[in-house]
Parts: sequence; structure tokens; C-alpha cells
Amino acid sequence: MLNKNREKLQKVIEYEFGDPEILTTALTHKSYVAETIVMENCNERMEFLGDSILSAIVAETLYLRYPHESEGKLSLFKAQIVSAHNLSGWAREVDLGGCIYLGKSGYTEEARQRENLLCDTFEAIIGAIYLDGGFENAKKFILKFLNNREEIEITDYKSRLQEILQSIYKELPEYKIIKELGPDHNKKFEAAVYIKGKFLGKGTGNSKKEAQQFAAEQAMKNIKTE
Amino acid sequence: MLNKNREKLQKVIEYEFGDPEILTTALTHKSYVAETIVMENCNERMEFLGDSILSAIVAETLYLRYPHESEGKLSLFKAQIVSAHNLSGWAREVDLGGCIYLGKSGYTEEARQRENLLCDTFEAIIGAIYLDGGFENAKKFILKFLNNREEIEITDYKSRLQEILQSIYKELPEYKIIKELGPDHNKKFEAAVYIKGKFLGKGTGNSKKEAQQFAAEQAMKNIKTE
Repeated sequence: MLNKNREKLQKVIEYEFGDPEILTTALTHKSYVAETIVMENCNERMEFLGDSILSAIVAETLYLRYPHESEGKLSLFKAQIVSAHNLSGWAREVDLGGCIYLGKSGYTEEARQRENLLCDTFEAIIGAIYLDGGFENAKKFILKFLNNREEIEITDYKSRLQEILQSIYKELPEYKIIKELGPDHNKKFEAAVYIKGKFLGKGTGNSKKEAQQFAAEQAMKNIKTE
Repeated sequence: MLNKNREKLQKVIEYEFGDPEILTTALTHKSYVAETIVMENCNERMEFLGDSILSAIVAETLYLRYPHESEGKLSLFKAQIVSAHNLSGWAREVDLGGCIYLGKSGYTEEARQRENLLCDTFEAIIGAIYLDGGFENAKKFILKFLNNREEIEITDYKSRLQEILQSIYKELPEYKIIKELGPDHNKKFEAAVYIKGKFLGKGTGNSKKEAQQFAAEQAMKNIKTE
């Protein structure tokens, strides 16, 4: 099943690997390596590489596409694009979850669709394309997702939420950092947003500001469905 | 004087800009733009771009050079290479400080040699080479510095310091975070290290762990000169 899926994947992403072993490594989660003798390498190192390659390509795209935006605005745009939330969405678009070599504990459809797993594997795929086909092919791969939208849809959810809440409640939302996760060099924050003490939404990000943006995004969705 | 310096710079870095305006922007600090009418763009956007390009090239170099190191180790190596401390050193190697267009308040030799200014301008130069000459030229530029050493000298200063202090004092060093600087999405930390309450050294980094590494590095130097 996995073999069929990986063939399909290469068709969907319009990139065929010259060296199939590189693709294999990119798709191999460490839980799989732990359970088997035939596999030696998991995709963590490739994820490290892909993360940086992605960052460079997104930075260039934003730099060229928004010639009048400040460095601060570009940084915020970039953080939203390379967030686990967004990348896992892109991974789902190409059914990446069904291609991952996972340890036995991971052989459930639910485990395959977890945000972090999808995001990490997506980054590993970028690293793999870079190693196999060079910078231009990695760029082509990423641009396919970035260009899917006429304009990259970057929304300043905090500002939007504030406008809405002010018009309804005549009050400003309140943000709290409710959790700090991960090691110091790779910290994640969880923020929650409230109005008049009532919980509206929460979100996780690489900085407090990013976490607040995602919390505001969730709050907007919750308000709409109310 | 500045014009002569920028000619010299292009010789030293062995890259001549096809479009001299790109180099001009890369060398222009925002304090200069504020004081003049003829210049419109400072180098902050190029620094944003160069930072990501540098990160990608360093990640690739480490990935290929250390095939058996874990992702965690590679991340630590990378953080040390792209640190302001290291990049400002590379900037000094090519006398970058003397080429920067600075506002009047910055026209002192001392101001030109500040770590952050040098690091930011160095990143802008990388962005500029990328825009002017593409990925391969940016890579060539960075590799000149990375390859200056047979082996990239990455030292785990915390472990080394610990060994030394244990052999002298039979005690472990103690680390404290003494300052947090900058906005949430670009936080810096300052750490200090002590033995038996005595101050040994301090350092600044993008994470607490990195700051501790630099503090340990300074402590090692201070111990040696004692």
C-alpha cells in the first residue's frame, strides 16, 4: 500500500526522485527505524535541512512579491507560512500522511494525520528534493503551494479580532500565555484569548506573538460558528 | 573614502556586483536613509533575505559534512555559526565596518565595529549577492568563510567548562539568565555563569542554551587569563 502511495505522491508533486533511497529516508519516521533492522536512517536530519531550504525560498518569494513591505511584516508573513499549522495543511493536500513509514504504534489513520508529523515529513520532503534535484527543483515544489493563491493570504487576525470585538462588546480582547513547550532552543508557546473573561480560542506558535495570532484565528472561527 | 572601501570589499570577497545599486542598498543602514533625500532604501529587507539564505547554506554544508551527527547536534552547530558573535567576526575579516553608510551619529570607528551592525550588514551582503548573482554565488561567498577551517570548529563550551571547574573546585558551574532582550518573535537572552557565587563570564544568544554556551566560552577565556 505504501509503495503505491509513494508512486502517487511523486505524480502529485510532479517530481520523480532520481535516487529512490532519498525519498525513502524522507518518508521514514524514527518510530519505524526503531522497529526494523533493514532501515538505518530516519528523516530527522533531512527535516533539519528542509526546514532551512524552505525558509530561504519563502523569504525570497516574499521579498520579491512585496517590495514595499517592511522587514518586520515579511518576518510575520514568513512565520505564518512555515508554521506547523500551514505546512501540515499543504502535506494533507498531497496525501503525505498515507506515505509515511511509521512504527507499529503509529499504524492508525489518526496518528498519520497529526500536525507535527505531517509538518516534519513535509520539511523532510523539501530536504530530499533539494538533495536529489537541487535548489531550483525544491523551489518549484514550494512555489506550487505558494502560488496556489493569487495573493498569499496573510491575515493579521489579532487586528481583525480586535475590530470585531470592539464593535460587539466595546472592549479589547485579552491574551494570556498559558503554556511553554519544548527545549530552550526550540521553544513553543500556547496562547489563549478571552473577552470579558470568556475563553474564545487558543493557538500554538514559535513565539508568543505567533501563538497569539493563531489564538485569534481560532477565536474568529469560533465566533462565526456561534 | 567609502567608495574606495567598497571597491576593496568586492576584491576581498571576490565578487563583483553586476548591479552596483544592490550593493549600495546592502551597505545602507537605516540611520543614513533618515538623514538623506537621495537614498530611499535601507538594508533591513535584504538582511531578512540574507539571514534565510545563510541558514540554508550552512544547513546544507553541515548536513553533508557531518553525515553521522544527529539533527540536534547540527542545529547547535548551525546556531553557533549564524550567531552575531561569529558573523561579526567574519565581517571584520573583510573590513565590512568601513564600508557601511551610516547616519552622522554613527560616524565613529567604534560605532562601525559594533557586533549587531556588522552581523546585520553581513547578512544583507549575503542577500545582495543572492539577488545579484543567485544561489551558487551566495554559497561560494559563505563557503569561503566556512572552509577557512579544515574542520568547522564547534566546541561544546559548557561541557568543557564543567570538566575544568570540577577538577579545580569539585563543584558544578551555575547558570543564570540575567536579561531578556528584543521583541517576542526575535528574543535574545543574556546568561551569566558563576562558580561558588563568583562571576565567571556572560554571553548573549537567540536561546537560553545558546546564551549559556557563549557565557561558558567567555568564562573559559577569563579562566585562562587569570
